[in-house]
Amino acid sequence: MATETTADFHVFDTTLRDGAQREGVSYSVADKLAVARLLDEIGVGFIEGGWPGALPKDTEFFARARTELQLRHAQLVAFGATRKAGVAVAEDPQVQALLDAQTPVVCLVAKSDVRHVREALRTTLEENLAMVADTVAYLVGHGRRVFLDCEHFFDGHAADPDYGVQVLQTAFAAGAEVGVLCDTNGGMLPMGVGRVVADVRARTTGKLGIHCQDDTGCAVANTLAAVEAGVTHVQGTANGYGERAGNADTFALIGNLVTKMGLPVVPAECLPELKRVSHAIAELANIAPDDHQPFVGASAFAHKAGLHASAIKVRPQLYNHLDPEVVGNDMRILVTEMAGRASIELKGRELGVDLAGQADAIGRVVDQVKVLEADGWSFEAADASFELLLRAELPGAPQPLFELESYRTSVEHWGNGVVVSEATVKVHVDGERIISTGEGNGPVNALDNALRQALVGRYPQLAGVSLADYKVRILGWKGGTSATTRVLVDSTDGAGEWTTVGVHDNIVEASWHALVDAMTYAVRHR
Amino acid sequence: MATETTADFHVFDTTLRDGAQREGVSYSVADKLAVARLLDEIGVGFIEGGWPGALPKDTEFFARARTELQLRHAQLVAFGATRKAGVAVAEDPQVQALLDAQTPVVCLVAKSDVRHVREALRTTLEENLAMVADTVAYLVGHGRRVFLDCEHFFDGHAADPDYGVQVLQTAFAAGAEVGVLCDTNGGMLPMGVGRVVADVRARTTGKLGIHCQDDTGCAVANTLAAVEAGVTHVQGTANGYGERAGNADTFALIGNLVTKMGLPVVPAECLPELKRVSHAIAELANIAPDDHQPFVGASAFAHKAGLHASAIKVRPQLYNHLDPEVVGNDMRILVTEMAGRASIELKGRELGVDLAGQADAIGRVVDQVKVLEADGWSFEAADASFELLLRAELPGAPQPLFELESYRTSVEHWGNGVVVSEATVKVHVDGERIISTGEGNGPVNALDNALRQALVGRYPQLAGVSLADYKVRILGWKGGTSATTRVLVDSTDGAGEWTTVGVHDNIVEASWHALVDAMTYAVRHR
Repeated sequence: MATETTADFHVFDTTLRDGAQREGVSYSVADKLAVARLLDEIGVGFIEGGWPGALPKDTEFFARARTELQLRHAQLVAFGATRKAGVAVAEDPQVQALLDAQTPVVCLVAKSDVRHVREALRTTLEENLAMVADTVAYLVGHGRRVFLDCEHFFDGHAADPDYGVQVLQTAFAAGAEVGVLCDTNGGMLPMGVGRVVADVRARTTGKLGIHCQDDTGCAVANTLAAVEAGVTHVQGTANGYGERAGNADTFALIGNLVTKMGLPVVPAECLPELKRVSHAIAELANIAPDDHQPFVGASAFAHKAGLHASAIKVRPQLYNHLDPEVVGNDMRILVTEMAGRASIELKGRELGVDLAGQADAIGRVVDQVKVLEADGWSFEAADASFELLLRAELPGAPQPLFELESYRTSVEHWGNGVVVSEATVKVHVDGERIISTGEGNGPVNALDNALRQALVGRYPQLAGVSLADYKVRILGWKGGTSATTRVLVDSTDGAGEWTTVGVHDNIVEASWHALVDAMTYAVRHR
Repeated sequence: MATETTADFHVFDTTLRDGAQREGVSYSVADKLAVARLLDEIGVGFIEGGWPGALPKDTEFFARARTELQLRHAQLVAFGATRKAGVAVAEDPQVQALLDAQTPVVCLVAKSDVRHVREALRTTLEENLAMVADTVAYLVGHGRRVFLDCEHFFDGHAADPDYGVQVLQTAFAAGAEVGVLCDTNGGMLPMGVGRVVADVRARTTGKLGIHCQDDTGCAVANTLAAVEAGVTHVQGTANGYGERAGNADTFALIGNLVTKMGLPVVPAECLPELKRVSHAIAELANIAPDDHQPFVGASAFAHKAGLHASAIKVRPQLYNHLDPEVVGNDMRILVTEMAGRASIELKGRELGVDLAGQADAIGRVVDQVKVLEADGWSFEAADASFELLLRAELPGAPQPLFELESYRTSVEHWGNGVVVSEATVKVHVDGERIISTGEGNGPVNALDNALRQALVGRYPQLAGVSLADYKVRILGWKGGTSATTRVLVDSTDGAGEWTTVGVHDNIVEASWHALVDAMTYAVRHR
């Protein structure tokens, strides 16, 4: 059931249909159901679920959606094409599949560029109009709300400014509720979009929508320009996933429409879900979240504090375009080279570490960070290592998990071409000496396996911890004789991730530091 | 020397200054010099190199740039702040550092928002104007072209529409050449940018510029809206790298300005360098290239062929917003990796390899590159490895330098805290079996030393070859169980550098491939 807000202004998400065109994305039906539930939580009005009849997985999605999907805000939309040229609409199996999907809304795609009608569809301009009229009327007659995506509308408008308008008028006359102007090839800029929308509005009477691709890097701005010019239906995809450069990002559209343009296009209580839903969908799509994504990225409100830390602390609104909490995000202060007491305090607050009355400890941390950063350490991406460093200076700091006696790790390339890695660690845990050997696909992986195996008896939670990512950066290489290596390790226990850092001339020793921090953090703070 | 094109319209790149604010980016001075050379190749008019005096690395960059950087198109720019409040400009060491940088252009940042003057700078509005006037006049008096970045200009304009204009007028009166309106917090949309620029243009007479952050996802569109409203100086960063959501992407700006707005802002011959330069800078920044980046991403012109394959083949312009070759990119129809015959031929010509009459060899190289790229190899930044691969397919290809029997490399962390690396290689050179052991500050360095020592008797020129840089990227990490590692090795013989690549599940084996290529290239082609 749509709220009043979204009934007037359509936020139409097509993550599951057009967004699934992104190279490498392949959702299972269960994934699609999960993505639909998430999209509903941010209050979009319409969720386009797929193309029943054309894609078997999508047919199954709509069948299962009928019993498994309870939506609070959104209406489910089936996507399909107008009837084939020269075929009666009632006899076109693809149109029948749209009815069989049993969605309240159908979004039809139609050609609106004369060149595409002639060269891709290979039919006449008149037959294409008849295909639009017949299919819209047929679906409306069967009780569906019908939206029409006018493919290649803007390129078509440049080639022949009248034909696209004829397609729209035909669709509206047949009962279509929305005519969507699609920049299918994505080559538009906002100024041009505004001009075309204004022209089309002056020559049509129905509700207009906009669908933008990001080939000029302007998909979001093009959509907003269309809204300024009068469209009241916007199409986007979660995180901008889509073919080529992708689509307009639904989260950026909502963020801008609500917070910048004052249009309450989703229910107010949904806005703080944006960040969580963005990351959850990235997880389902198996795409690493973009830390730099507007509004919802992990770094979207991150500041390198430096000299301005005190000003940011007093008046954060002078340095943020928006209160990050509005979209469920956080301001993060990055601990960097110029870290002063103020940024350590801010960071401590962010991590939930009570630093009240700890002036001496803060001073020691500032000094340590300065020394470590001069040596190449960097804590701005390694919150977990920073938290361990901070807590180690506070009263009652815990003992290390173990004491290292020695380790050895090796890689051998044998005569038969086989490459093997093996590591042995000797550690003392609660007074007990443990020797453990592990194998792996590299010297660090072998060391990780050996250490985990040595500790898991005493710290069984480590069994559920694994490496999620591993980054290496060589710093200050000086002609091959000496260099510093910085390693970042992302670890996961299934419920969350944390990042640790290690720095050393030797890549293996740097990795060892990061691994030990990762396991220590897992035991103490997860 | 700037061309006429860029002398009229400024494309000002700040990858090395504002772009370096991106979380996790840390360039060495050598990296900065390499990035500057790459930016020059795309024909930008100005390259902002850093903040001399404030950051020691940037001071060194400008010192080395004087002898090591020969720019064809761009002028180098030093960035700094106006003099401190209450300090004579000639006595401000930070201003002195700007002169010491000896760049033809200085870009000064000034506060233009009354709240930032009062609350962050903690001075009066009048003193801030005096700081602008004094510093601009002083630098102009010392022969510098001076541009002024007006920080927080748009938020400031909303709070007090007059003060920012006063700052601009003050700067112009003191001799500043450009006044740059900065959307420092990145909260603007194109319509608002256009309105503010129009207002400011009506009330000032100097040349105006624009600097946009991407917090609304509109940095590129905001910049273009400002151009439409009359600015003739645009600031961007390579790939949009920058703090938070990043900056306007220089490549998208150039792509749009030239191909969509008809403004020849870079020399025509530079446009096809966009993709290559984008990827090379990503390598130097150690950030995975964004496949979906407009214009330059690997997927920017990729089509899931499907039903339209033949239509796309016959009339590709119906499905592309731009001919991809214009920006040095390719249209990809299949999901398989690209590298066509034409690009191999082009590359061969670039490397000085004669491929006349070598159709079969080219075919074999195309096939090999496809297979290797599918496995994670990338030759974009590794010309030396590519040249070896190419020449190996030509008639009379030389034998390998040696045959490997086996190698072993290890890292030990001893009880006394000492970390040691040692490697042994067993190789056959001209029928002779050689066993050689080397030490190093890591498993790869030890292996490099052992192999060099094994070969130097037969190939004495290797004595003068050393590693100049070493980069590691983990590809396709899958939950800690398996991943592919790509290693890039830069080698030098004092006279020049060359880059080789290796890919394997095991980082050491990947490094081994790159090391062997590096030594082979040294012997054959240096």
